[in-house]
Amino acid sequence: MRNLDEHTITQAVLTRNASAPDPRLREIMTSLVQHLHAFARETKLTEAEWEKGIEFLTAVGQICTPTRQEFILLSDTLGLSTLVTAQNHKKPEGCTEATVFGPFHVLDAPRFDLGADISAGLPGVPWFVRGTVRDIDGNPVPNATLEVWQADDAGFYDVQKAGRAANSFEGRAILQADSEGRYHFKTIIPDCYPIPHDGPVGKMLEALERHPWRPAHLHFMIISPNHERLVTHVFREHGEYLDSDAVFGVRSSLIADWVAHDAGTDPYGQAIDTPWFSLDFDFVLNPIAR
Amino acid sequence: MRNLDEHTITQAVLTRNASAPDPRLREIMTSLVQHLHAFARETKLTEAEWEKGIEFLTAVGQICTPTRQEFILLSDTLGLSTLVTAQNHKKPEGCTEATVFGPFHVLDAPRFDLGADISAGLPGVPWFVRGTVRDIDGNPVPNATLEVWQADDAGFYDVQKAGRAANSFEGRAILQADSEGRYHFKTIIPDCYPIPHDGPVGKMLEALERHPWRPAHLHFMIISPNHERLVTHVFREHGEYLDSDAVFGVRSSLIADWVAHDAGTDPYGQAIDTPWFSLDFDFVLNPIAR
Repeated sequence: MRNLDEHTITQAVLTRNASAPDPRLREIMTSLVQHLHAFARETKLTEAEWEKGIEFLTAVGQICTPTRQEFILLSDTLGLSTLVTAQNHKKPEGCTEATVFGPFHVLDAPRFDLGADISAGLPGVPWFVRGTVRDIDGNPVPNATLEVWQADDAGFYDVQKAGRAANSFEGRAILQADSEGRYHFKTIIPDCYPIPHDGPVGKMLEALERHPWRPAHLHFMIISPNHERLVTHVFREHGEYLDSDAVFGVRSSLIADWVAHDAGTDPYGQAIDTPWFSLDFDFVLNPIAR
Repeated sequence: MRNLDEHTITQAVLTRNASAPDPRLREIMTSLVQHLHAFARETKLTEAEWEKGIEFLTAVGQICTPTRQEFILLSDTLGLSTLVTAQNHKKPEGCTEATVFGPFHVLDAPRFDLGADISAGLPGVPWFVRGTVRDIDGNPVPNATLEVWQADDAGFYDVQKAGRAANSFEGRAILQADSEGRYHFKTIIPDCYPIPHDGPVGKMLEALERHPWRPAHLHFMIISPNHERLVTHVFREHGEYLDSDAVFGVRSSLIADWVAHDAGTDPYGQAIDTPWFSLDFDFVLNPIAR
């Protein structure tokens, strides 16, 4: 393995990797090395461009923190996340579609009872969200766990806010649907927002003259035994950016009417002196094949 | 741009990027997105594997410091660096070949006069290095700048050593060849060494059952007006790992005899009471086409 040129190097690396004991790792590395090399050959990548690439990836890694995941943003904006989501969630007709996970989920969200206000005091227009978790035959799935997370009415997630205490959360919750599959909670209407664009991914979008905006949405992750985990959003009908989501995550079946109501009485029968919104959205889980 | 699947997503991303004003950026991003997506489709990458990939790249970025460049290591061990070097340095017969830059160059190496001891007191076997910088016709190139860097006799670079002061360097120098193209300096024999393998790239090599070793070598970067910058190594004949360099950098034309001498008199006519080595190596620079 001496005197390798831009053509012979590829086989040399594959040969070196051929002793990997895990066949799946070998398979992934083979495809990765072939495509990485083909990319560099095809573009006749220069040393200066290679260096810029190294600097870019380093900056992406360095800006990551426990609450900021710039590599997920990069994957999202390059369409890789949508691709991986799509090819791993082929479902029977009628199941709720999955979409990108995004970088704003946390592992230690607070638990709330059904009916709770999960906004933790965020200012904004009150929003009452409810629905039923069902199986493919339309029957309720009892007691599913729902994780919900969302931006505030200025388009920011709690984890993006400077000076926030590590255990202080806004607009996120873990809820348990009832025995008839029903879930319901109160929060505020989230706005559309730009993905964090003060870092290297933002610079990339700028160089590409792409906007960083995502249409308004509410994140759900729904977990129930015997069903495939569902990670999805519910988007706002007629909202901005539905056709140019910076991360390519919009699916028509996930767009719903966020219904406006006048002040008066909320869905819990309480007096409410401001206008409010409601969302009714049922989820259909995909059974795990036996 | 809604309802994208693992096939339609690729064109959607390319379309989004098509407004990039810089045609070269567009070209690079097009190839990158196509290969990234093809890799994920070909391997049917799962979400768990995608997540592992995100974690790996994040760890690679997070371990980088001003003196540790893990993304260059990754590029080196995946053969990308050798590919990029090779395709950017096609030279006329007779020119000294280039090889990988590596992650251990620093920008602020100390300047030394010809004949100096550049080891800064490193223990080891004395080594007297000399040669001439020439043009393609064999004529000396006067006054070229040579940057030299090397590992110590345990295989470590100065920048890898804990507790080192930022302005303290060992085994690195910037020298200027004389008006007849000659350079010469004293140092110590570097050993072969493992590339830093306590980080994510080391874990990758381990999973692939690949060793992290590089054959012993001395780095040179030679800069002279009207010539292409030369970044190369001089390897040790009969040294270990010449055929399994962890970063695929060995070229036969860069392997030289590191000649052993008994104690007695060194090349500068000074008494020397230990055995020592010498290296004679001429460099031939590639003229910049006019």
